[in-house]
Amino acid sequence: MTENIPPFGDRLAAAVAARSSQVVLGLDPDPRIAGDGPDAVRAFCERILRAAAPACVAVKPQFAWFERLGAPGWALVHDLAEIARDLGLLVIADAKRGDIGVTAAAYAQALLTGPFDAVTVNPMLGSDAVEPFIDTARGIGRGVFVLVRTSNPGAAELQDLELADGRRWYEAVADRVAEWGAPGVGTHGLSDVGAVVGATVPEHLAGLRERMPAQPLLIPGVGAQGGRPEDLGPAFAPGRGAAIVAASRSIMKAADPRAAAEDLRERLWEVSG
Amino acid sequence: MTENIPPFGDRLAAAVAARSSQVVLGLDPDPRIAGDGPDAVRAFCERILRAAAPACVAVKPQFAWFERLGAPGWALVHDLAEIARDLGLLVIADAKRGDIGVTAAAYAQALLTGPFDAVTVNPMLGSDAVEPFIDTARGIGRGVFVLVRTSNPGAAELQDLELADGRRWYEAVADRVAEWGAPGVGTHGLSDVGAVVGATVPEHLAGLRERMPAQPLLIPGVGAQGGRPEDLGPAFAPGRGAAIVAASRSIMKAADPRAAAEDLRERLWEVSG
Repeated sequence: MTENIPPFGDRLAAAVAARSSQVVLGLDPDPRIAGDGPDAVRAFCERILRAAAPACVAVKPQFAWFERLGAPGWALVHDLAEIARDLGLLVIADAKRGDIGVTAAAYAQALLTGPFDAVTVNPMLGSDAVEPFIDTARGIGRGVFVLVRTSNPGAAELQDLELADGRRWYEAVADRVAEWGAPGVGTHGLSDVGAVVGATVPEHLAGLRERMPAQPLLIPGVGAQGGRPEDLGPAFAPGRGAAIVAASRSIMKAADPRAAAEDLRERLWEVSG
Repeated sequence: MTENIPPFGDRLAAAVAARSSQVVLGLDPDPRIAGDGPDAVRAFCERILRAAAPACVAVKPQFAWFERLGAPGWALVHDLAEIARDLGLLVIADAKRGDIGVTAAAYAQALLTGPFDAVTVNPMLGSDAVEPFIDTARGIGRGVFVLVRTSNPGAAELQDLELADGRRWYEAVADRVAEWGAPGVGTHGLSDVGAVVGATVPEHLAGLRERMPAQPLLIPGVGAQGGRPEDLGPAFAPGRGAAIVAASRSIMKAADPRAAAEDLRERLWEVSG
């Protein structure tokens, strides 16, 4: 069965081309936006998902907002992922897990089975925390996005520390990510191990693209967090499928979520061409 | 109501004294040990928990193993936490979450309400990823254990990188943890912000204790991972309640889990005196 599933990098490149979009709909159902309780969150997310899907290539549910709903939230995020797949979207489980070997394998079982095409992973614990995700993903055409340089205000405190060898700590992470991803490069030149790099630090993008020439980049931080699509050009150097850009609040809170997603789609398509 | 709850550092010190134990029972129900499916895992965990509890001060469910069971696993870990509390144990949610501001607040709501006394947190994303956990915990007598130097083989790859200022990266994390914890020190001299430091690197313990004089240490890695209780003396320098030591496989897989926990309890009590 599995031999029919292309590697994740090829699936991503094909999906971006087929949908002419690099937009990832972030589903972060903050109760201040979505209402509270599983039923309200379900209705809100399904409405946004169906509205924005035509302009998107993927959806990224942020697990925290579902976990706070307890067991019903866990079921809900799976249901929404199934709906997203039916709408033709890739599904990225934004769980940012990171734990040691056997535990990482358990998370991989939880997050890379069923309707999830890729998962976000925290690299702080090193190779034995990341490789179980890669091992699980690789055989079944799925992918892993490793946090490299995040988009939040506090990211610099520990990620930007300068090393004795002159690199920043996040650059050392990027070099590891390139190593982890090397065996998983598909025919389009994209690996099944990608990286999360915030749109809020566009000045780092060119350097990170050099360190990670085959990594799909998952870029959060446009819109509400201040990142601008026009600054993301270097991320797309290897091709239009080489980066996907997540927006959540700017779409979820828009009066017309479809129009907000379509506007972002057009701006990204322009800058990536 | 909340003014009657002592700060977490005081609760921890009191619990260690009352139970004459620093043993944390790690509940990591790997299906190769516990059997598979929610019912088998529930029966296994409840049996181990009731057997080992008299020799322990806390229990630490590892969330990965429950999440892989889906929604029933999420309900199960809450049920086990309630049982542990009835048995007089503190409950530490070992979830190692780390995400940006508003998302961290959502995780804190999921993991620091109900039956959980403390939670493990990944610091890679910096202050705005950690402070929402601290803010949630502090007012209600709960605690946060921040990953500083983990016990796994790959930990050194990124955590031990040498910085331009001569520190190792994990030492920079430790310095941040001491800052985050300073406002939460209780009458016993212990903060509500602790640190996770692996027993597999005992040579780092004295230095980390100097950097974090008020931090309760949560120490995994004894037993199956190779750490020895006899090497943990520096962790207890501020007092017997200043460190708690997690063991999972060495208790869960023992022919007599109660005896295994009791043996560890005695060895730790000796070295901490």
